[in-house]
Amino acid sequence: MSSPSIILVRPQMGENIGAAARAMMNFGLSDLRLVAPRDGWPNPKAHEMSAHADGIIEAARVYESLSEALADCTYALASTARMRDLHLPVLTPREGAQAVKTHSKTAFIFGPERSGLTSDEVAFAHAVVTIPTDAANASLNIAQSVVILAYEWWQAQAEPGALPVEETPANLAQIEGLLTHLVGELERKEFFHVAEKKASMQRNLRTLLTKAEFSAAEVQVLRGIVKALAE
Amino acid sequence: MSSPSIILVRPQMGENIGAAARAMMNFGLSDLRLVAPRDGWPNPKAHEMSAHADGIIEAARVYESLSEALADCTYALASTARMRDLHLPVLTPREGAQAVKTHSKTAFIFGPERSGLTSDEVAFAHAVVTIPTDAANASLNIAQSVVILAYEWWQAQAEPGALPVEETPANLAQIEGLLTHLVGELERKEFFHVAEKKASMQRNLRTLLTKAEFSAAEVQVLRGIVKALAE
Repeated sequence: MSSPSIILVRPQMGENIGAAARAMMNFGLSDLRLVAPRDGWPNPKAHEMSAHADGIIEAARVYESLSEALADCTYALASTARMRDLHLPVLTPREGAQAVKTHSKTAFIFGPERSGLTSDEVAFAHAVVTIPTDAANASLNIAQSVVILAYEWWQAQAEPGALPVEETPANLAQIEGLLTHLVGELERKEFFHVAEKKASMQRNLRTLLTKAEFSAAEVQVLRGIVKALAE
Repeated sequence: MSSPSIILVRPQMGENIGAAARAMMNFGLSDLRLVAPRDGWPNPKAHEMSAHADGIIEAARVYESLSEALADCTYALASTARMRDLHLPVLTPREGAQAVKTHSKTAFIFGPERSGLTSDEVAFAHAVVTIPTDAANASLNIAQSVVILAYEWWQAQAEPGALPVEETPANLAQIEGLLTHLVGELERKEFFHVAEKKASMQRNLRTLLTKAEFSAAEVQVLRGIVKALAE
């Protein structure tokens, strides 16, 4: 079981990336992934704010899409303050830190500074983590959100917890493969006949397939079923 | 019971003061106290980083000494990563958040960015709070430390906890009065005959009197005892 990856989606300020890296290092996290950082990469401001966490900044990997950044992950939590039109469990940071302990390759996903994650992005996650705040002032700085989740993860390591129970869990690339297969067949059957609903139906399918936490073997079975049904 | 004050002792970077204020607002804290801020006050960089927490920055009070900043407090926790030569309880942030619930006027004390609190400053606290981190990377950004303690305090509010059990607790000014009285009488009796030990003996006396959590009435009794013994 490796420590969770921190995925920053479309981060805007280099300073926040650096502050997030510093917080990661304080709590034993090292794998930083950036999805389409606004100001490109590398970013000297991220280096400046990272204190002694240069190693994390230098090893950070950049992806074009959240889907690619999550490809090897078996369980991901999206940090968001607002409840969405998604049917995902909502965990506290403490519950989230416990949840990642029972999975093999995990990630915490954070959205951009101003807007946060979109519903389409949240749909990649297995659950949402919402940091309880004063309701009147719920907008946390992104590095502050990272430090709270990293802190809770570190705390959770010190406590005895459930052992990972997974056989070989499906990773995100396998779930995406199933989803693409399924959507393709559904299109052929003209399932998405109301065009404007297609996007939200696909998002709901993604959520449904993700939060089920299928094993890799189960995903294979499901692909077989889709194929059989479509023939 | 009021929410804890955040006391930043000799803070260096205005940006960190602003980030601390923002974190305070997220978690329902509002009383910011600054002891001898390096770059004076007001500080435009603190405003810039505070996001919507301008109100906290504008209402912040500046003191020349930690003793003055703590004068009305009945219970204070010092945030420090290192164990000192002080005989104080060491709490986790979660334990600290529970501890402040049982006192009436409380404060979290944070030291300057590079050096942290001195032993003399920590001696004003009733207990130390140490944020558990990766031992190899224990140096947290000051605003990150503030956000973790504020977050734990906010969490603790949501849980049922012990009720305040104090009669009228002694505040710091009363403890200082007792200490000054006691030290004065001890000097007259040439108690501090080894000059180089005087400072550490005084510090130990302060710790001893502070962590006992005397009530205001008890401090009065003790002053009477000191007076009677010295005559």
